[in-house]
Amino acid sequence: MIEERISRLKEAMKREGIDVYYLNTSDYHMSEYVPSYFRTICYFSGFSGSLATLLVSLEEACIFVDGRYHVQADRECLEHGIKVMKLGTKDTPDPIGYLKEHFKGKVIGLDGRRTSMKFAKALVREGFRIRSVDIYSELIEDRPPLENAPIYELEEKYTGLSRKKKIAMISYCLGERVHVVNNLESIAYLLNLRSSDIVHTPVFLSYLAILEGEVYLFADVNRFDGELLDRLYDDGVIIRPYESFYDFLKLIRNRQILIDENKVNYETYLALKGRGNRIYNMRSIIEDMKAIKNPIEQKNLRLAHIYDGVAVLRFLMWLEDVDKSTVSEFDAAKKIDELRLTYKAEDLSFGSIVAYNENAAQMHYYPAKDRAVMLDNKGILLFDTGGQYKEGTSDITRTVALGEVSEEIRMYYTLVLKSLFNLCSVKFMEGMSGSQLDILARKDLWERGVDYRCGTGHGVGYMLSVHESPPNIRYGHTEAGTELAAFKPGMVCSDEPGVYFEGKYGIRLENMILCRKDECNEYGQFLSFETLTMAPFDRRLIDLNYLDEKTIASVNEYHKTVYETLLPYLNEEEAAFLRKACEKL
Amino acid sequence: MIEERISRLKEAMKREGIDVYYLNTSDYHMSEYVPSYFRTICYFSGFSGSLATLLVSLEEACIFVDGRYHVQADRECLEHGIKVMKLGTKDTPDPIGYLKEHFKGKVIGLDGRRTSMKFAKALVREGFRIRSVDIYSELIEDRPPLENAPIYELEEKYTGLSRKKKIAMISYCLGERVHVVNNLESIAYLLNLRSSDIVHTPVFLSYLAILEGEVYLFADVNRFDGELLDRLYDDGVIIRPYESFYDFLKLIRNRQILIDENKVNYETYLALKGRGNRIYNMRSIIEDMKAIKNPIEQKNLRLAHIYDGVAVLRFLMWLEDVDKSTVSEFDAAKKIDELRLTYKAEDLSFGSIVAYNENAAQMHYYPAKDRAVMLDNKGILLFDTGGQYKEGTSDITRTVALGEVSEEIRMYYTLVLKSLFNLCSVKFMEGMSGSQLDILARKDLWERGVDYRCGTGHGVGYMLSVHESPPNIRYGHTEAGTELAAFKPGMVCSDEPGVYFEGKYGIRLENMILCRKDECNEYGQFLSFETLTMAPFDRRLIDLNYLDEKTIASVNEYHKTVYETLLPYLNEEEAAFLRKACEKL
Repeated sequence: MIEERISRLKEAMKREGIDVYYLNTSDYHMSEYVPSYFRTICYFSGFSGSLATLLVSLEEACIFVDGRYHVQADRECLEHGIKVMKLGTKDTPDPIGYLKEHFKGKVIGLDGRRTSMKFAKALVREGFRIRSVDIYSELIEDRPPLENAPIYELEEKYTGLSRKKKIAMISYCLGERVHVVNNLESIAYLLNLRSSDIVHTPVFLSYLAILEGEVYLFADVNRFDGELLDRLYDDGVIIRPYESFYDFLKLIRNRQILIDENKVNYETYLALKGRGNRIYNMRSIIEDMKAIKNPIEQKNLRLAHIYDGVAVLRFLMWLEDVDKSTVSEFDAAKKIDELRLTYKAEDLSFGSIVAYNENAAQMHYYPAKDRAVMLDNKGILLFDTGGQYKEGTSDITRTVALGEVSEEIRMYYTLVLKSLFNLCSVKFMEGMSGSQLDILARKDLWERGVDYRCGTGHGVGYMLSVHESPPNIRYGHTEAGTELAAFKPGMVCSDEPGVYFEGKYGIRLENMILCRKDECNEYGQFLSFETLTMAPFDRRLIDLNYLDEKTIASVNEYHKTVYETLLPYLNEEEAAFLRKACEKL
Repeated sequence: MIEERISRLKEAMKREGIDVYYLNTSDYHMSEYVPSYFRTICYFSGFSGSLATLLVSLEEACIFVDGRYHVQADRECLEHGIKVMKLGTKDTPDPIGYLKEHFKGKVIGLDGRRTSMKFAKALVREGFRIRSVDIYSELIEDRPPLENAPIYELEEKYTGLSRKKKIAMISYCLGERVHVVNNLESIAYLLNLRSSDIVHTPVFLSYLAILEGEVYLFADVNRFDGELLDRLYDDGVIIRPYESFYDFLKLIRNRQILIDENKVNYETYLALKGRGNRIYNMRSIIEDMKAIKNPIEQKNLRLAHIYDGVAVLRFLMWLEDVDKSTVSEFDAAKKIDELRLTYKAEDLSFGSIVAYNENAAQMHYYPAKDRAVMLDNKGILLFDTGGQYKEGTSDITRTVALGEVSEEIRMYYTLVLKSLFNLCSVKFMEGMSGSQLDILARKDLWERGVDYRCGTGHGVGYMLSVHESPPNIRYGHTEAGTELAAFKPGMVCSDEPGVYFEGKYGIRLENMILCRKDECNEYGQFLSFETLTMAPFDRRLIDLNYLDEKTIASVNEYHKTVYETLLPYLNEEEAAFLRKACEKL
């Protein structure tokens, strides 16, 4: 069946004069997670994972997947005659490398709406000829429709700023310049609108263009109720059909246009270029504004983290009581999800990760029902979970003992805990970036020759995506370079060092921290962090031999704050449990 | 007299159609310190400091000086009717700002040999018309001649690599491309040649071009002896007159040319541009090679620092014994200079800074004979000194108690000491830069709201300039961006945190550290530092209340190494003194 689908794709390629067709897992908006409408790679390859690239030439079809999908791709694709390219293994090229090797100067077909401007331009620079054409959609049978749940307003008591004010501020910054946005989070933020097009991320499919003080929103008008349409109209938002976006762009001429080549698709670029337009690549000013949470958002966020802390506390209590040998990782995930959703959360902020012992060493482990293992009264359990609240988005990781644990685990737990506090306790000079702070969270692990192969912290949205940037705390370099963006008061970020020992265990601890102004003196403005997350660390896993006085004081102070902050929201039994969990070290 | 000189300059300006003439303190090579031939700003302004810009228009003459010269410029220049522009004070523009304000679109005259390509291009971008013409030299009477001391060879037992090999390596990297160099340190390094054209920096005036595997050295041929000329000839070095450099450049056509716009003068750029040449701006590969000390250089450097440590130890002993009330900062500087020069040093590596109490709070304080203060049996003395040895260049700062000191001083001394060890004890991931390590040396001071307004560490040459880059450890951004360059094994750097309280006191501690490979495992290659400097810290100034166990262990270990390493070079009395100074905390 898959073979036949690929044959039909090849026929279409021949018809269009295409040598290789490029299919990926992106949507039209370069989103991290995508609506089900965009799960098209599965149709042509059988691959059901979330990230892959499929290259189909007249000779062969290759699927490129990263480490977490090597086994799965073999299982799902080999039988259909698709070659599996395992990224990260020796001598395996990435898609561009493969194309350079086999198709130098040839015609590459792709859907320009699903390819970033940056990637497509890189292909052009390498000498490929690109044809942006959708030849696959007409071949797909029974494709799920685009989402069309109602779009609703997030009230000003949550957003802290009216849509009108946000638009005025952005328009002031833009002046005469045009700004075109594909990114769904930026649009939802600017317009104080939400929906549910992407699982756990309350955005809606749309494009946006700001032009001469007018805001054009390209979205399905049937998704708004009449009152909301009136309010949008009053605020100067003009709604146009989602499909009419590219035709609209083709009317813009002789303008300076700001777009972010990392977050805008190639089709957008093609529709804008020429006609006297000058295109400037820069991070969207909406994104910069969104990253800095305003005072109302900050106040709400503190409340969201109290709600979240209560749910996490109840999960810890359940975990303490339950007969561990009767529950699986999947059951535990279901439990914490239920505790969040029946308390205050609108939704989860991502699929809960609950990982026992060696499973926690896999950074992208997800406890699918069919592979989740049973727990036991020993070892450690990592859970990385979060909720969407109208008061903000949470993301928290705790690792807890289910019974006996080794001295080694306690040592590493303690070092990870120290690393977390090394970062969040820092007082630093305004202007510094995540790239400059990262070492604080790693140095104690590096001293022992251990590292974690991921960033230390990512920005978090407000009732939006659980991953946003800036900020971005990491020592390596990313394409977008957000790790070099300066921290600003009001930015929210995760602080999540860890250790991952393959086949043995994984430990990660994660708090969310809010950047705030600290002392200002003759040396300049200092910044520091306030911790938002309100949940105890597992005292049983702390080995005081590896903790200095300063960190001990920090842990005690944090636990005191957690206890005092959550107390008014707890019943007696919960309060007693938390009191014990927060006892002084 | 000065007024008359300025008048004659204005006449020349009128003749040449120049609206403003730009004079600075640079030489033709963008050197940090310059030969006396280039002290021309004093002739036209009376200003005798080391760094200033003089702008002469037909209406007025302004001199721009930074904080350390505000008072001096007032004293030396005001009487000649020259306006003093105090950089760093409110509403004072920098030279470009001043020019933009008053001379938009006008003709600026300057000596293109004494202006960096980067600066001149910035002026052009701002819309100024530039005339590169030397109208001042013919006006100067009794100008000192260019230096012409003999140029000598630094033997391979010191340099670790022959000139021939260095040239072959650079030529291999260049391939077909042309490389043009103005920087004196790079030329001296590549050719294993030294002289004494700049005080304390053993370089010689010259330019260099590498073209089709041939090395052209533009320097005064009379400064080489016959044997050295033969050896240079054998190694493929073609010597041309110093003055013929620009005419030579004008013959280059249709080539790719690599130059560093920060270290090449504007005249060089003018002579190269056009004629089908393509000019690429990048840090010189000679500079990158020079920054990584080879194994022989590293071995020698360890010895140089033993020699230097012995001299410093003798100074500490002298300081202990002498009646402090009978010596001035100047006398103390003379003493340590003499101890270095009569032991093993060829020269000092910079003018010794010896600063008592509040004088040490001035970062650029220099104990000139006429302003040096007398010491006393109390307070603290900072000395920042270094030597040039054939085995390498040293740079060390110690702050010592001369008697009673306050609790506050002991606290800050201890925090600075901790900061120094926080940096030099780090084990970090290959690929990281000075910008990412800097926070280690500052975080304990920042915690108390204190910072130092300078970098934490600079690269150091080998029998060359005491300041070179990369590496560069600082959290702020520099124009050349060397703080973003990755540390490489073999790089040598200073580690010099401090505190500076104006009108009260200053504390700085400085060791030189050598970057080396550490563990390599599944996470990658780790790097760490070896400390080169061999001199004790003042135990009397350490307050254990502010030191953690780890730092105490580091200090003890360092003192043990210092004692054991210097011992074979000491007499009994010296050994006894050092033993006591290095006792366990």
